[in-house]
Amino acid sequence: MSRARPFRFDRREGVFHLLDQRLLPMQERWIQARSAADAADAIRTMVVRGAPAIGVTAAYGMVLAQLSGEDLPAADHGLRGSRPTAVNLSHALDAMRPHWGDERAMLRAAEEVWTEVELTERAIGLHGAAVLRGQVLTHCNTGPLATGGYGTALGAIVEAFRQGRVRHVWVDETRPYMQGTRLTTWELSRFGVPFTLITDSTAAWMMSQGQVDAVILGADRMAMNGDFANKIGSYGLAVLARYHGISFYTALPTSTVDPQLRTGADIPIEQRDGDELRCVGPHRLASADVPVANPAFDVTPHHLITGVVTERGVLYPPFDEALRGALD
Amino acid sequence: MSRARPFRFDRREGVFHLLDQRLLPMQERWIQARSAADAADAIRTMVVRGAPAIGVTAAYGMVLAQLSGEDLPAADHGLRGSRPTAVNLSHALDAMRPHWGDERAMLRAAEEVWTEVELTERAIGLHGAAVLRGQVLTHCNTGPLATGGYGTALGAIVEAFRQGRVRHVWVDETRPYMQGTRLTTWELSRFGVPFTLITDSTAAWMMSQGQVDAVILGADRMAMNGDFANKIGSYGLAVLARYHGISFYTALPTSTVDPQLRTGADIPIEQRDGDELRCVGPHRLASADVPVANPAFDVTPHHLITGVVTERGVLYPPFDEALRGALD
Repeated sequence: MSRARPFRFDRREGVFHLLDQRLLPMQERWIQARSAADAADAIRTMVVRGAPAIGVTAAYGMVLAQLSGEDLPAADHGLRGSRPTAVNLSHALDAMRPHWGDERAMLRAAEEVWTEVELTERAIGLHGAAVLRGQVLTHCNTGPLATGGYGTALGAIVEAFRQGRVRHVWVDETRPYMQGTRLTTWELSRFGVPFTLITDSTAAWMMSQGQVDAVILGADRMAMNGDFANKIGSYGLAVLARYHGISFYTALPTSTVDPQLRTGADIPIEQRDGDELRCVGPHRLASADVPVANPAFDVTPHHLITGVVTERGVLYPPFDEALRGALD
Repeated sequence: MSRARPFRFDRREGVFHLLDQRLLPMQERWIQARSAADAADAIRTMVVRGAPAIGVTAAYGMVLAQLSGEDLPAADHGLRGSRPTAVNLSHALDAMRPHWGDERAMLRAAEEVWTEVELTERAIGLHGAAVLRGQVLTHCNTGPLATGGYGTALGAIVEAFRQGRVRHVWVDETRPYMQGTRLTTWELSRFGVPFTLITDSTAAWMMSQGQVDAVILGADRMAMNGDFANKIGSYGLAVLARYHGISFYTALPTSTVDPQLRTGADIPIEQRDGDELRCVGPHRLASADVPVANPAFDVTPHHLITGVVTERGVLYPPFDEALRGALD
């Protein structure tokens, strides 16, 4: 069974190979990074995306810098600026710094960054699989492509399928960027998990027809009371799941919980360009003067969540207490 | 203020001009129908769509047949087969039949078909406007392009804006066919009504932010208990509106109520081609082997409806009683 990995490192050739995710699923083209600058370019141009996957790529970017004799402070600086908002990026680069100049130690440190992602997500997958059954619905992309490991929510789904607990997945296409259509279907195909693609607004109808036993999706940021920000559409799914008596889970590494945030009201919502709605790929549907609101995320309040799947187990209400315990 | 009409008849030239809705909103190209065959082609190829608009086009198709000396039974047969499921189509052709051969009477009958649409929708607009205020959210396309008149739900919104009751409209893009993006935004621009386009899954978030005072949309078919089929996504909006304490209306001519249907469970749901999700225009997002479920409609149960806006007034629960009264 293919692992659907977004990258691999060839030590002998000194090349970090990256799957160009911008072309998926229509083309599977690999890009070769031979320097830290190549790695930074791949991050900047979205060849690779997803916070954990960006962290791993940055760590190997420093390995490439060492192997090819680049200036290490300049390489670090270039990688740090490639996606300024991803916290995993600076964590990974911080982990590399003590080993600068020592090729073997740097390689080991990069492997550790990657292994940490894998171990965390393996635990998330096992804990999450235990609460899923039958038919599950997911939103956006939370699989190996976004992390370099097993994925979060999608890792749990795939594990539950392997255990014979889950038999079918409803994949929301996830407007406007179509991560469901382009990435999640590609991953599920690789893993041999039966799925069906639907428009986001079809989810409610499938729920009403008794075709959804659980909803599970990821989280971009969680406050200490359990409120969490995730791809736009997640909040509506939480409301619909509650109405239909369906379990609603989010899966995340505990590093996604922000101890500085008391509630979801403190999470800022990124507003993205209106052309994401006016155009699909090169195809324009509406002229540039059509007013658009395009929030990238919404916030789901903790009281709509059945459970939070983490590497330390599934947390249940009251979430403020459970999260304090898990972060200790 | 432009009427945003989808067609006009030029009696002197014997031409029925049709706005090519397939090219909207990027191009406004008019097509000339000079025969019943031209009119049937326009219906078949979706130059014109929407049940009332198709009925008017068919009526004028018979006028063109008379003017150009075509064989009338053959013209009638060709038009009847152009969109087999539209009930307005056969009603309009039935209304023309008694006048075959009498040019003046046929023209008057076609005008009556059109006038009937306009009068019905003018009444729907006035009744609907009285229950709307502030910011309203709508789904799919229910405006003049779909009817040739004022529209149903959109007619009520435009009238409410003219009366100063509604100040802003949230337009769902309406995946997969994008009627909101392509047609509803075009109509609201024509009428000068302020609006903002959103993805379908953003609607829940706007409701939670207190940005939606009412939802109003159309109906393709209503059962005698008030359950109704409409564009996929309507059911989810009804659930979300209920959860947020927001009024939820459907607007329709009473001819949309099917006396043969006891409940919504009897309404068959059309499953459409998966390529509507896999491709957007000429742009392919997923390969042909990606499994897709693409129901064109869903069914909203009557208990989620605040009121049904008809040409005879706004109906309130219990809907079975109210509908029997309105159809009497």
